[in-house]
Amino acid sequence: MEEIIIPSEKLHRFVVQVFEHVGFSVDHATESADALLDADLRGIDSHGVARLSGYLRLLESGRANAKPNIYITRETPSTANIDADLALGLVSGTYAMQVAIQKAKNVGTSWVTVHNSNHFGIAAHHAMKALPHDMIGIAMTNASPLVAPAGSKQRMLGTNPMCFAFPAHNQNPVVVDTATSAAANGKLEIAQRKNKSVPKGWVQTADGENTTDANALKNKGSLLPLGSFEELGYHKGYALGAVVDIFSGVLGGANFGPFVPPFVSFLPVLPNAPGKGIGHIFGVIRVDAFQELDDYYKNMDLWIETFKKSTPINIEKPVLIPGEPEHNNAEYRMLYGIPLHKLVYDDLVEIGEKYDIEGIRKE
Amino acid sequence: MEEIIIPSEKLHRFVVQVFEHVGFSVDHATESADALLDADLRGIDSHGVARLSGYLRLLESGRANAKPNIYITRETPSTANIDADLALGLVSGTYAMQVAIQKAKNVGTSWVTVHNSNHFGIAAHHAMKALPHDMIGIAMTNASPLVAPAGSKQRMLGTNPMCFAFPAHNQNPVVVDTATSAAANGKLEIAQRKNKSVPKGWVQTADGENTTDANALKNKGSLLPLGSFEELGYHKGYALGAVVDIFSGVLGGANFGPFVPPFVSFLPVLPNAPGKGIGHIFGVIRVDAFQELDDYYKNMDLWIETFKKSTPINIEKPVLIPGEPEHNNAEYRMLYGIPLHKLVYDDLVEIGEKYDIEGIRKE
Repeated sequence: MEEIIIPSEKLHRFVVQVFEHVGFSVDHATESADALLDADLRGIDSHGVARLSGYLRLLESGRANAKPNIYITRETPSTANIDADLALGLVSGTYAMQVAIQKAKNVGTSWVTVHNSNHFGIAAHHAMKALPHDMIGIAMTNASPLVAPAGSKQRMLGTNPMCFAFPAHNQNPVVVDTATSAAANGKLEIAQRKNKSVPKGWVQTADGENTTDANALKNKGSLLPLGSFEELGYHKGYALGAVVDIFSGVLGGANFGPFVPPFVSFLPVLPNAPGKGIGHIFGVIRVDAFQELDDYYKNMDLWIETFKKSTPINIEKPVLIPGEPEHNNAEYRMLYGIPLHKLVYDDLVEIGEKYDIEGIRKE
Repeated sequence: MEEIIIPSEKLHRFVVQVFEHVGFSVDHATESADALLDADLRGIDSHGVARLSGYLRLLESGRANAKPNIYITRETPSTANIDADLALGLVSGTYAMQVAIQKAKNVGTSWVTVHNSNHFGIAAHHAMKALPHDMIGIAMTNASPLVAPAGSKQRMLGTNPMCFAFPAHNQNPVVVDTATSAAANGKLEIAQRKNKSVPKGWVQTADGENTTDANALKNKGSLLPLGSFEELGYHKGYALGAVVDIFSGVLGGANFGPFVPPFVSFLPVLPNAPGKGIGHIFGVIRVDAFQELDDYYKNMDLWIETFKKSTPINIEKPVLIPGEPEHNNAEYRMLYGIPLHKLVYDDLVEIGEKYDIEGIRKE
């Protein structure tokens, strides 16, 4: 039995209880469960409940704070910088988007940075908070250094996602949520488990040689930026990863580049860290600041219809809109439950037993 | 003689006179010359004076306006939407960044869209206007459709650049200015002129087959998004190109996707255009809205130093900072002049003779 399927509500309730057990307020526990379940629903399994035990270890080690005092360190009418007090990014990101949406209501748009934070799950969960308000949402975060700059063999950047969510009316929203590396670490891990090779262009060895060995990253290798090769423009992926790092780290006073603290709690944090924790940035843009809502929605729907109709190379594979596969996953999994890898299931069962929480075990 | 070298001041003076001759105000002529020369100085030769005759043909055909009445159609404290009245983007972009900088001064950050515009040269020229004000600058534009979405064989997107310029103190600024396609059209044209093949991953045939034939684009083929191949994540390049198109086109009421009017004036504009002209978006962020300027600059310089020192694969090729090659080009060409391809030189000489302007001819 490779996969165990659990209804999403049941899994959500379980995650809420776990976070409450380790000291979270009801609100923070719910926000954290929302974020993890959103990842699982959308099919980004590497960022959902599979990471629950990782977050718990961060809390146990004192590198994350279950009862954070999150506060604004500086603000203007359209900006805020937030000290997350070592909250999980699942929590601080939720707060930051509330602040960003309110400021955009007031003056049209906003940017909110968060420092002294931890990993925030999937960027799309946060950016999409803007959509019901007829606003565009942006979310970026830096992350554990795994990616080498173009021409380097040193791990300097995270897989640093850029996310942009655009509201639509008759169509589903356009949600771009993309790592700035050629492949996410999660994809490498899948290949490792299956003992399979990976395409050339994902990863290089510690000496900077391109390889198909999925274990190269574990052996001091590094991920390659989007573009993968010099002649295919991997300096562009590197540059976009740098943008995410500077916005998330430098602008708000978090760590950046190789100083970003690793997600796994057993790896040491580098000494002489220039900033506090990891960092995120969120942006919100009110659509009606630019034109009538009706006009925007008419053209946004037309954009989506036009791109859906663009001629596919393979007639059986219609052109996809960014966010469409994740939306379809969410609809399906909402109805039919979340498939958990056996290892993840065992991990959750163990957490339930340890904390004496009515678990998710299937008899 | 393949290249003719002209001092940048002389070339600038010539371009100002040409634009004045066709009816531009002194200010608009100067702004336009600034933008074109900036491209040539930074080594983006495809976007500099090589395009002067293209802009002139747009003006002659009535698709661009030499005496535009540029005005704001809607605004909030942090936003504006601008009708460029068919100005060149060189002009409307300059105006939009002035508006954006003033609004960021007032409330911290800003976003300004421009519709009913034409091509704006290199994005970096506009984004970098924020730097002397201790602000981060963002510039994006859509452009003539040449790029196919992932899995499509239809030209739907421009090479849609994203540009982010971050001010630094002791170091040069970080300037990311990157097309969201694997290769720019300019690079293909160079290969065509030299009758050389191109790397697989730049371009596909009209049937959607990857090819090394540099002429494929001319023969109804299309450029490929950054990432180039499915297994190397070209859906990410497609998604980022879509972000630029929606921001530049849909948000402000310009055209988008296949409706974007082509730069070359002899190609027809599609009927039933949903918007007006081509579109741009500009963003400005005041650094001191987030932390003390001194703290930001200390860490921004440290970011740059840290990445410069990251271990190169080839010891003779140190890791570059985004914008560094262009900065070095500009320093060199400011001193030693702009090298013009013979065809571009001949083109400019012809323009000078036609308008009876003291030309740039070398006797």
